[in-house]
Amino acid sequence: MRLVKIGIANVNATVGAVRSNTDRCLSLARAMARDDVTLAVFPEQVIGGYAAEDLVQWPAFVASQQRELRRFAEETAQLRTVFIIGVTVGVGGDLFNAGAIVHAGRVLAFSPKEKLPTYNIFYEARTFSRGMPLMELDADGVLCGDRVYAFDFGTIAVEVCEDIWSPDGPMRRRCYAGAEIVCNISASPFRAGVTGTRREMIATRAADNQCTVAYANLVGGNDGLVFDGGGFINQNGRPMLEAPRFREGFSAAVVDLDRTTRCRREASTWRSDLEEFRRASARMVQVLRIDGETADRARLAYPAPPAGTTPFLPSAALPAISARDELLDDFYEALALGVADYYRKIGAFKSIGLALSGGRDSLLTLLVAWRAVQLIHPGLEGAALRERMRASLHAFFMPSRYSSDATHRAAAQIADDLGVSFAVIPIEDAFPRELEAAQAMVGEGGQLTELTKQNVQARIRGGRMWNWANTSGALFLQTGNMSEKALGYTTVGGDLEGAFSVIANLPKTVVIALLERLSQRFRFQGIQQTLATTAGPELAENQSGEAELMPFEVLDACLHLYGAEKLAADEVAAALPSLFPDKDPAALRAWAEKFATLF
Amino acid sequence: MRLVKIGIANVNATVGAVRSNTDRCLSLARAMARDDVTLAVFPEQVIGGYAAEDLVQWPAFVASQQRELRRFAEETAQLRTVFIIGVTVGVGGDLFNAGAIVHAGRVLAFSPKEKLPTYNIFYEARTFSRGMPLMELDADGVLCGDRVYAFDFGTIAVEVCEDIWSPDGPMRRRCYAGAEIVCNISASPFRAGVTGTRREMIATRAADNQCTVAYANLVGGNDGLVFDGGGFINQNGRPMLEAPRFREGFSAAVVDLDRTTRCRREASTWRSDLEEFRRASARMVQVLRIDGETADRARLAYPAPPAGTTPFLPSAALPAISARDELLDDFYEALALGVADYYRKIGAFKSIGLALSGGRDSLLTLLVAWRAVQLIHPGLEGAALRERMRASLHAFFMPSRYSSDATHRAAAQIADDLGVSFAVIPIEDAFPRELEAAQAMVGEGGQLTELTKQNVQARIRGGRMWNWANTSGALFLQTGNMSEKALGYTTVGGDLEGAFSVIANLPKTVVIALLERLSQRFRFQGIQQTLATTAGPELAENQSGEAELMPFEVLDACLHLYGAEKLAADEVAAALPSLFPDKDPAALRAWAEKFATLF
Repeated sequence: MRLVKIGIANVNATVGAVRSNTDRCLSLARAMARDDVTLAVFPEQVIGGYAAEDLVQWPAFVASQQRELRRFAEETAQLRTVFIIGVTVGVGGDLFNAGAIVHAGRVLAFSPKEKLPTYNIFYEARTFSRGMPLMELDADGVLCGDRVYAFDFGTIAVEVCEDIWSPDGPMRRRCYAGAEIVCNISASPFRAGVTGTRREMIATRAADNQCTVAYANLVGGNDGLVFDGGGFINQNGRPMLEAPRFREGFSAAVVDLDRTTRCRREASTWRSDLEEFRRASARMVQVLRIDGETADRARLAYPAPPAGTTPFLPSAALPAISARDELLDDFYEALALGVADYYRKIGAFKSIGLALSGGRDSLLTLLVAWRAVQLIHPGLEGAALRERMRASLHAFFMPSRYSSDATHRAAAQIADDLGVSFAVIPIEDAFPRELEAAQAMVGEGGQLTELTKQNVQARIRGGRMWNWANTSGALFLQTGNMSEKALGYTTVGGDLEGAFSVIANLPKTVVIALLERLSQRFRFQGIQQTLATTAGPELAENQSGEAELMPFEVLDACLHLYGAEKLAADEVAAALPSLFPDKDPAALRAWAEKFATLF
Repeated sequence: MRLVKIGIANVNATVGAVRSNTDRCLSLARAMARDDVTLAVFPEQVIGGYAAEDLVQWPAFVASQQRELRRFAEETAQLRTVFIIGVTVGVGGDLFNAGAIVHAGRVLAFSPKEKLPTYNIFYEARTFSRGMPLMELDADGVLCGDRVYAFDFGTIAVEVCEDIWSPDGPMRRRCYAGAEIVCNISASPFRAGVTGTRREMIATRAADNQCTVAYANLVGGNDGLVFDGGGFINQNGRPMLEAPRFREGFSAAVVDLDRTTRCRREASTWRSDLEEFRRASARMVQVLRIDGETADRARLAYPAPPAGTTPFLPSAALPAISARDELLDDFYEALALGVADYYRKIGAFKSIGLALSGGRDSLLTLLVAWRAVQLIHPGLEGAALRERMRASLHAFFMPSRYSSDATHRAAAQIADDLGVSFAVIPIEDAFPRELEAAQAMVGEGGQLTELTKQNVQARIRGGRMWNWANTSGALFLQTGNMSEKALGYTTVGGDLEGAFSVIANLPKTVVIALLERLSQRFRFQGIQQTLATTAGPELAENQSGEAELMPFEVLDACLHLYGAEKLAADEVAAALPSLFPDKDPAALRAWAEKFATLF
């Protein structure tokens, strides 16, 4: 039996804030050492923050990360835990995104990332160089390259984020060279379904390579990206830990490394593959032996299966919530964390405000902001929180002649439900005046379009919100959803205004589903009142978004088929009947054409 | 859009029965062609049956498989579906476990298995040769080697079972060479947790290789192994189909192969890996272009997400049953299929019988046999099934002086609940007689041990069951569970008798959990009555298995730690307190010692 306690640290790092990021790491490092953690894994680029993008091309930024890394090593010199921590390393003309191995006050080595993602939101190959198999560089006296590290408790490898997403990553050759634990330091942003994908991929890698994978993810919002944190420890295919997400902190689990040795000896296919690899490889990855005593492991207890399970049977409990509700709750938490961290990390705002119409989009934005204020003030409860909420969050209802009593009542109600500041600022004084001005600008012969008459209202609201935000130092939130933005069902200079666009990545059907979920969770009357109204912008008489566009479910299906599946316009039309077998094919064809025209 | 319909065929093959196995394949082939299936994937070794073990060393067996494969090709010559089917191929001194590619009456190629499992229940490297990268052999005029196959609908690769379980398998180089669909033909036996492991591994492979994986598994019992069938279609990480398990038949799903092309172009890490692979490889796998028209794809419809889900949100439904109940139901189905197929495939039995004690083990064995009789006679219902059940399944209650009224009543009750034949055959006449005979054999000075007095009863029962089975051509079922067998809490020549050991792989805690689950499902009074008794063999006064051994949960934990985790005896003792924090450490230590002594 060779018990090892692995800690997964989730840090909410701010891009560029190297000193406070390192302080956060130090605080968790000390807590993990107190908890007898043998090996502590921090996230990718935790010292500099992720994604720093081109900022890493500023030499002073790289130097400041190295300086803070040395401070981290010095201040943890008395701890016996081994630390793996993400940092940028410059070596001559190369810049690497690396994991540093730190123990007993020394930076022992850097393990540079080999797979640099350059798809989707990632642009890493633009600024970083790739680590290579068997590479060995000297980074100011510290090895920067491809090694595995043998401590008194066992042998580890260190890799960075995307390295684990490639089947051709460094894990294989390092496990063949003897690595028992592969530490993956990640900054993996939240998206729908990512937790399940990470879970199944990590389980497969741990089984494929007959090793323990320890995966630690960054947490927190950084502008448009939200990192959901969490992490996994999986030993040879068996889940040992799933760390809580959306929070800074650490969690830990014990594994018996002798089990990994035993599993390898049993796995004839793994051993055949190893033989084949040895035959084909001129050199194996070298083992760097690290002297010095690591944390005392005498107090560690053999890992027990999770409560409610036995070695032979899983738990009898059903999941408490459906996959859909779980995902909707994740969306809500991710959105709120995005707003809260934008507010906190910019550090310039005094409050938050939005134009609340009584409709669905601004209602959801308000509910997200309400949760964000709670995250911004984590210590507050009861009356103190209520007082803070009213001072921090401002909803403005700005009716025109087209605003209905129903939306007015719903807006007032939810503001009351949440205890946020609420003001009614009619735009009826400005509306005729701006119509007149516009008329004067097009001249006597010209005629204002109906659409312009609608846009005028939205622009009055947008301008007033900016005026308020400027004068009060507030964060003005934009409220538009992805589906309607995609079709231009929105006003430039109007509801497209705002400093932070909260739900711009949520399709309309998800906005509605999330409101239904929040209504079920919180029972606010205001949500029910808004959901009872017809969805529409109230910029003309009796507007209905679905009547003016198409059913939201069809719109979102088009958005998926075109935007995510990247089908051609005629292919979108051809695919729709599979998704809506009960709808009239001619209507579906017409909607697909409308989508293609408006998009 | 390039729609392709992939069919997954689950066949219940019998080892050696090449003609009827091929007939089963032909029947499914015709059904799939009628259903517009473009590409149909059959299981591994489906023509010869799996695991044939050393039988493949008989040249006539291999020749008969090739003859049946040619017959399969001839009889499907008019169908336009492409078929992938598992067969043994001999080439000179090599014997390969291969997938045959069959289309339009021709066997186009053989794709031999590369990874030969030789762990756990597998011994393949003993009898088969390994396929190799870029290998090309001539199997009587048919290519046997490493190629990808370009049809008019797209490019496919064919691999066999274990090939997908290795990250160093043939899938990578074949996908790099252009394969879009990887057909994996499998014979993967059932074990606890295997469905989830297959699901997550296949999703990871499909994402790693940016391809569609089509995985078809063998179904049915073959002696000690039960194959659970089912299969998966996963496109680039997205689940498209999960085939029903434990039944012969086929299921199919449509994928858009243009989506795979698009995903590859988006995936910069996959493309970098491909560049690296090209740089490192002297030769890529060659593409074999196959002329000839495959199935008409004009009628295929674009794949829709499963009912209840949208492109953006999963279903709101909770799982209907817990993971534990799902697994217990799988156990029940697997055990019943094992008994039913042993009965059917041997083909020599006229009925099934067992000694029913009124205790847990024989009760579960009876319930499994009851389900097996339903599987053996799938056409029967109502009165016809009831009549068949009474004629097919015989339970004998054979009381001694130690048998209680409670177990007698429970045995009679469950027999009545199930409508099986029930006879009470007391052994009290034989018991004193055999005690006397044993006493005579040890002589005047000898003394029968208490244990022998118990064994005598079990042996009378064992002998009588054999006598009955011999004279009536019945399948006599053994009823012992794994935990008690492991500790020798059983009688050689007594309850260790029987032609098929039904629950020998179930730990006692699982026997009890499964009975509780079946009680909940079927509401039979007899199950409740047995569960209300103290578990024990009733071979002496007031026996309790847990009192004589240890609590079953501790026994099973020891079994897990020693038998599965392969800890040393002192490590088992050290680990137990983690699993049972509420139990007295001294008692746990004593039980661990007892386990080590008895095992």
